[in-house]
Amino acid sequence: MPFDEFKEECGVVAVWNHKEASNIAYLALYAQQHRGQEGAGVAALDKESQGHQSVSTIRVHRGPGLVADVFENFDFSALAGKASIGHVRYTTAGGESLANIQPLYAEIAPGKVALAHNGNLTNADDLRQDLISKGAIFAGTSDTEVIIHLLARTQKSDPLAERVISALKQVAGAYSLVIMFEDRIIAIRDPQGFRPLALGELDGGYILASETCAFDLVNASYLRDVAPGEVLEISAEGIRSYFPFGVQKEAACIFEYVYFARPDSMVFGKTVYPVRKKMGEELALESPVAGADVVVPVQDSGTTAAIGYSQKTGIPLELGLIRNHYVGRTFIEPKQSIRDFGVKIKLNANADVLKGKSVVVVDDSIVRGTTSRKLVTMIRAAGARQVHMRISSPPITDPCFYGIDTPEKNDLIAAKMSVEEIARFIGADSLAYLSQDGLYRAVNGAKKGEPRDSKFCDACFTGNYPVEIKKKARQKELF
Amino acid sequence: MPFDEFKEECGVVAVWNHKEASNIAYLALYAQQHRGQEGAGVAALDKESQGHQSVSTIRVHRGPGLVADVFENFDFSALAGKASIGHVRYTTAGGESLANIQPLYAEIAPGKVALAHNGNLTNADDLRQDLISKGAIFAGTSDTEVIIHLLARTQKSDPLAERVISALKQVAGAYSLVIMFEDRIIAIRDPQGFRPLALGELDGGYILASETCAFDLVNASYLRDVAPGEVLEISAEGIRSYFPFGVQKEAACIFEYVYFARPDSMVFGKTVYPVRKKMGEELALESPVAGADVVVPVQDSGTTAAIGYSQKTGIPLELGLIRNHYVGRTFIEPKQSIRDFGVKIKLNANADVLKGKSVVVVDDSIVRGTTSRKLVTMIRAAGARQVHMRISSPPITDPCFYGIDTPEKNDLIAAKMSVEEIARFIGADSLAYLSQDGLYRAVNGAKKGEPRDSKFCDACFTGNYPVEIKKKARQKELF
Amino acid sequence: MPFDEFKEECGVVAVWNHKEASNIAYLALYAQQHRGQEGAGVAALDKESQGHQSVSTIRVHRGPGLVADVFENFDFSALAGKASIGHVRYTTAGGESLANIQPLYAEIAPGKVALAHNGNLTNADDLRQDLISKGAIFAGTSDTEVIIHLLARTQKSDPLAERVISALKQVAGAYSLVIMFEDRIIAIRDPQGFRPLALGELDGGYILASETCAFDLVNASYLRDVAPGEVLEISAEGIRSYFPFGVQKEAACIFEYVYFARPDSMVFGKTVYPVRKKMGEELALESPVAGADVVVPVQDSGTTAAIGYSQKTGIPLELGLIRNHYVGRTFIEPKQSIRDFGVKIKLNANADVLKGKSVVVVDDSIVRGTTSRKLVTMIRAAGARQVHMRISSPPITDPCFYGIDTPEKNDLIAAKMSVEEIARFIGADSLAYLSQDGLYRAVNGAKKGEPRDSKFCDACFTGNYPVEIKKKARQKELF
Amino acid sequence: MPFDEFKEECGVVAVWNHKEASNIAYLALYAQQHRGQEGAGVAALDKESQGHQSVSTIRVHRGPGLVADVFENFDFSALAGKASIGHVRYTTAGGESLANIQPLYAEIAPGKVALAHNGNLTNADDLRQDLISKGAIFAGTSDTEVIIHLLARTQKSDPLAERVISALKQVAGAYSLVIMFEDRIIAIRDPQGFRPLALGELDGGYILASETCAFDLVNASYLRDVAPGEVLEISAEGIRSYFPFGVQKEAACIFEYVYFARPDSMVFGKTVYPVRKKMGEELALESPVAGADVVVPVQDSGTTAAIGYSQKTGIPLELGLIRNHYVGRTFIEPKQSIRDFGVKIKLNANADVLKGKSVVVVDDSIVRGTTSRKLVTMIRAAGARQVHMRISSPPITDPCFYGIDTPEKNDLIAAKMSVEEIARFIGADSLAYLSQDGLYRAVNGAKKGEPRDSKFCDACFTGNYPVEIKKKARQKELF
Repeated sequence: MPFDEFKEECGVVAVWNHKEASNIAYLALYAQQHRGQEGAGVAALDKESQGHQSVSTIRVHRGPGLVADVFENFDFSALAGKASIGHVRYTTAGGESLANIQPLYAEIAPGKVALAHNGNLTNADDLRQDLISKGAIFAGTSDTEVIIHLLARTQKSDPLAERVISALKQVAGAYSLVIMFEDRIIAIRDPQGFRPLALGELDGGYILASETCAFDLVNASYLRDVAPGEVLEISAEGIRSYFPFGVQKEAACIFEYVYFARPDSMVFGKTVYPVRKKMGEELALESPVAGADVVVPVQDSGTTAAIGYSQKTGIPLELGLIRNHYVGRTFIEPKQSIRDFGVKIKLNANADVLKGKSVVVVDDSIVRGTTSRKLVTMIRAAGARQVHMRISSPPITDPCFYGIDTPEKNDLIAAKMSVEEIARFIGADSLAYLSQDGLYRAVNGAKKGEPRDSKFCDACFTGNYPVEIKKKARQKELF
Repeated sequence: MPFDEFKEECGVVAVWNHKEASNIAYLALYAQQHRGQEGAGVAALDKESQGHQSVSTIRVHRGPGLVADVFENFDFSALAGKASIGHVRYTTAGGESLANIQPLYAEIAPGKVALAHNGNLTNADDLRQDLISKGAIFAGTSDTEVIIHLLARTQKSDPLAERVISALKQVAGAYSLVIMFEDRIIAIRDPQGFRPLALGELDGGYILASETCAFDLVNASYLRDVAPGEVLEISAEGIRSYFPFGVQKEAACIFEYVYFARPDSMVFGKTVYPVRKKMGEELALESPVAGADVVVPVQDSGTTAAIGYSQKTGIPLELGLIRNHYVGRTFIEPKQSIRDFGVKIKLNANADVLKGKSVVVVDDSIVRGTTSRKLVTMIRAAGARQVHMRISSPPITDPCFYGIDTPEKNDLIAAKMSVEEIARFIGADSLAYLSQDGLYRAVNGAKKGEPRDSKFCDACFTGNYPVEIKKKARQKELF
Repeated sequence: MPFDEFKEECGVVAVWNHKEASNIAYLALYAQQHRGQEGAGVAALDKESQGHQSVSTIRVHRGPGLVADVFENFDFSALAGKASIGHVRYTTAGGESLANIQPLYAEIAPGKVALAHNGNLTNADDLRQDLISKGAIFAGTSDTEVIIHLLARTQKSDPLAERVISALKQVAGAYSLVIMFEDRIIAIRDPQGFRPLALGELDGGYILASETCAFDLVNASYLRDVAPGEVLEISAEGIRSYFPFGVQKEAACIFEYVYFARPDSMVFGKTVYPVRKKMGEELALESPVAGADVVVPVQDSGTTAAIGYSQKTGIPLELGLIRNHYVGRTFIEPKQSIRDFGVKIKLNANADVLKGKSVVVVDDSIVRGTTSRKLVTMIRAAGARQVHMRISSPPITDPCFYGIDTPEKNDLIAAKMSVEEIARFIGADSLAYLSQDGLYRAVNGAKKGEPRDSKFCDACFTGNYPVEIKKKARQKELF
Repeated sequence: MPFDEFKEECGVVAVWNHKEASNIAYLALYAQQHRGQEGAGVAALDKESQGHQSVSTIRVHRGPGLVADVFENFDFSALAGKASIGHVRYTTAGGESLANIQPLYAEIAPGKVALAHNGNLTNADDLRQDLISKGAIFAGTSDTEVIIHLLARTQKSDPLAERVISALKQVAGAYSLVIMFEDRIIAIRDPQGFRPLALGELDGGYILASETCAFDLVNASYLRDVAPGEVLEISAEGIRSYFPFGVQKEAACIFEYVYFARPDSMVFGKTVYPVRKKMGEELALESPVAGADVVVPVQDSGTTAAIGYSQKTGIPLELGLIRNHYVGRTFIEPKQSIRDFGVKIKLNANADVLKGKSVVVVDDSIVRGTTSRKLVTMIRAAGARQVHMRISSPPITDPCFYGIDTPEKNDLIAAKMSVEEIARFIGADSLAYLSQDGLYRAVNGAKKGEPRDSKFCDACFTGNYPVEIKKKARQKELF
């Protein structure tokens, strides 16, 4: 699924007590670029003495596009200071979308504050309407702005962490948040722990990131995950931890393991690579292909599972689809459209591997089905005798409301067709998905019948939403 | 004074009921570009039917730089709709200054709203602190954001115009405002009427602009000025007018006539050109130069007064300083600096006119004095026998707090030196300013001793501030 | 004529023996920006020692647009070296036009060489075809490339100056050229001296420029003009001068005085300002307007002549047309076009000055007549009682083939209509041009009947072409 | 070797008789982007009737950077016409490098012509000096300009193909060329056939490209390779083929199989993928690693060989190094440099796969050794017990002079150190290269001792240069 059917979600970072905090934050975004390619930003907290007073300033640089573009030729001395937060995001198009690129900045009762948010609130609309009716002003459309407003209206007398807690007690849904105040950074994961957030150590300071691959790039050491429902306060006094939300059922996004996270990252306490590879192995056990000649991964998202499938079955892995690594955001197609162009610009069939063969194509998921259909057509055109599609996750039947930009339910092919029908639609000789059972075996060794007891959210495969969705019909914007 | 010693203030426009509203607004900004070169923006109100409902959308395009740059290759179909407002501004440098470029947009209790503001509130700091303490969030540093917050917190039950009035009753200082709601535009001038705002008619719809030169470009007809303290509501029902602030002393900015407004504009009910020319005539009467050979304007701001001075004295006007019309925002100076470079890049001495002559140089004002000094040096270097500087306004002794970005008091040369000292500092054989009496004679025929009874604010020349200034020391940002 | 009916021609500069040669060249282009706004470039000659050898390098930076744009944020250390040449040009649109932006650079038999050229060769087409048939390759369409080829094919045994002379003996037409070799700069004006070229002194080195306003900006002193037919060689040995072309009739472009040159520049040995002003005075003597109320210049090109007209007649000069100084290259017009938009965006009628008045409008020339027509319409719409157009040069009846981009003959209104017909076409109550006699009186005191004896080319007014034109029909590209 | 130690060479394309020729050429460059990321260009041949005459125009669009950048928002109607050629290149930095971006365009005796060249001439310097001494002018530094000059000087009486042949008989070295004239395209491969060039059919017209992956993207069918020494003329009369250079020893670049070509491309008549995979298999046979746990490819260039190595040895392939697919041209490193940053930004060690393991790392080649050293360090830091480096080609001991930008000999680690010394330098437990024998077995089944009889150039591994190199010391620029 390298075809942008699923939009990526978002990635965050926070750096505390580092001389080059903003540069480190930028690099951590660079490493997490796969989590959001439409916008990026970094905020830095600077302290300057004015007379015998110390004045705090938060400066922000953000813009549309890739991290490399937003910060091209950027001079990080313009983001001086020893604390910093950052964000990469998928943003919707449109005139005023700039207002949604994070970190958001505001001056509010608790002082200057910058926020970066990965996730999606399920009660944001209601909160927004309520806040507006109480006199709030909204510049953009992001959930994160709701959080700032709630924070701005908390009890003045309370300490900062209390105010954050009081604000977040009003929201529901998914949020891995980093909030930079004038003298501290507070990081929070929602009680279900939908989205990942890890804590690391760097040169005596701290770093937080959605994925640990960010730590690796900057030579930080992983300490632990921020726990579901944990409020982590980092200041000159060190780290303090709060669990104000009571015990709630954990619901970490299982799709991080299927597709989002980089294979070298640790999320929810486990490295992705072996989990994803095990999905391929389970898939091989569940749905082998008799007489198949080659296993071909849909690069890059299907590669790890394909390795598992190949190793388990003994069918050799071959690069039957070659990826063009230089595909930009846009390309100019001829008016008389080339067959299957949208797929071809990214992947090309390697006829040498495919010709006359019975091919097992391993991909991580099918969303709308149209891309898979083009892929199968292309592989057949290259001479494959048989094309067997194997998907290393269960059918996606339900949209996500916790931070991933899936299409609406009626655009999800598996919500409308049986596996057989999908196989026919995409033109495959056979099609098999990994079972939910198989998925849980890969992720945590769970047995059949017990997935709902697990600590994961699998709503996209089951429709079991761990946090109530008010208006399923209205897909929220994502962070 | 073509040397950016005074930063320009701002310019606004609003268009109601025109098929190409945003394009018209853009052109009106183009005509008012001299009022602000650091940022520009246009917001447009669009109505779209969704089912049997009509949904209002406000779209905004804004950016740093000149109107021509911000809208280069812009497709105005992206700003569809029959109502539009726009703004040109001088903005301070700095990372987050983008948040201050107008029109500002927000979704608030009264619905979607966009604002453009020319002026400066004198109680913005207090209001801001109060609002923040009540839970408001501030994204930028502009006064205009304060107004949005006040508006957001007005009584829901009240009609829109009442809410605007209720919000504005809390602010003090200078504001010529255009506010676009989902179904109307409301334009307001503060009770003192510091900044101009004119109403015109265009193709059966309405247009508002800071200066009437904007009307000329788009073939609109001038109807009248928005009156000081008037709240003008334009909607499908036509125009309604309110005067909710009671009778207050008018205090229109007299400096619009001296420098800001384009000579072909009408402001405060009078065309600028004859007023400005009369300043030159009064100056000629007050401070003639015996035996002078030529009158040389400091182009372009000094030209109109120089024509008056020349006509009144009979001393021929000559272009002794030639302006380079292609001076960009920046230029790269050699490291071994050229003498008087900053002046020379913009004006060059025309030796043919100056050599051996007794020269009367006419400029509109002196701010810091350093530019005048360089000018005099350059004119002498070109061979002038005598250089007599004549300034078509009184000495600037006090900073402006109502929307013009003057330096602080201790950077104003006339606040620190007598006219003789200034003459010596700039190296002129003589220096004379227009008297306040003379200024008022030019503007409205006032006699000596009565300026304070006039309808103008002349605080920059007198220190008589018509609206109380809390912290004179802290110069506000300008709009 | 501020409306781009005449495209500007080109401007050149050369700097010899200055530590910041390229930066100086850039500033000299900045001052000469009015001579070409479509492209700019600077070449610098650097010497580096490699072992015990000194290696010469010529580096070039050039691009489309204004000098300020081409060199925005440019680091002149990338154009190191003590010699430099530069060029501003008007260039035609089109994909490969970049190949025509100067200075051109080539490696040829005499070594590395860069050229900048102001003028137009009349036999370029023939030479080009001949050179191509002999094996030459042409990358662009510029005459200057022809010169490089001729130079490349000269006798190896000859000294550099001889080779330049030998090359130029083959060309005809207009050329003010600066050629930078690895150890010298050679500057040449064609035998007729069509285009200007002045020599100055700067910090012990030399500078050459089309106009002396460039000298003023960089504090250089004017020494003298390069003479028509002079070959000036500047090297470590100082300056040598050659006159290899024999005595020919001088034919300096009289239009430089009418329109092109900046009024503060000296060209052909005289400052432009008094000459241009005298054109207005002669025009006043020849064609007064009885009972006129005001003289209104078409800014900026008509201002100097208008001052002369006003002073000679005693009719007061007033700014009846106000120029918008911020007009960019492009502006987006509404689809339902505004009347006379193309004029209005640049000039606005100042009704205060025009209403009820008999107005004398002074412009420098009329080309197609359409702009004048719009101007007259606009002035009348502003309330003028009578509009009398006065043009400070004779009717333009013939195109230029020596470096100015005039329209073809059948687009020149004065080639097709009598003065009365033109008056009717543009809607003026009266129209008068300066006579050729009057023009020569202004320029050099010549009497009626003797213009052809003068040292000027007036072909655009007379059709008397001093150098034969092979194909009048085909307008050449300009430099 | 994904670290840009070897600069890529170049890629060309030509399209004949297609309605959207330039758009097709652009896409073919897109597919060949891996062959040159520093510059790209497309030229198109248009025919327009002027009166009863048909006029040919060649338009060119080119610029620095990736194809996607050069043609961002490009409107291909500006490159109208039914024939087109294109080029991607690696270009050296520097002011005037733009002059080297291809296709080059010139007007010469045979008319308008555009050229795109992949390869490097070995006698370009001599030819250039000779041409200059005969009066030629050179705008850039590329070999291709030499070819244009030679072509410009051929016998007028000869037909075009004869002129091309006559020009090319003077050059030596590597050239796969496409030349577009006003009525035909001529494509040539040098007699040794150093660089690839394939012919395809597209919608009834023809297409030529360096690699067949370009054909796949645009749905063209591969017909055959242009043969070494073949001159292929495509015009309205169809295809004609000439072999004017006599029989010479073929010397196709074997490194295309090792690294350059995309695995799905056919070059020199064979698909790259199975050849490259066989290199891994041969390497496995020659240099197994006893007790190794995993085979880890250095993505992406080492992946195919690693698959071969893994399959042959049965040691499982695992992604022990994860590639960041979003690495841009530049990134801003913190001042206090992070260890091994340059490698880390592109590849991250996947500790899960490496920890405690004996790892076989498969890469395609080692150039300077510094990158391999960093890789080994990084893999060890991730916990690998042993690191065994296996290289799927022989040691690179000699620079290339036929179109690949290798460092000079004394920067090639294998030119200075034994395999044991290199192993120690990079810190590997063991290091083995594929033998030359093994390489030839993979490429064409050749036996030990006979590589020099083969049709390949292996000079980079052997120093046996098939075409004489005059000045080995001076590395040429590449195309």
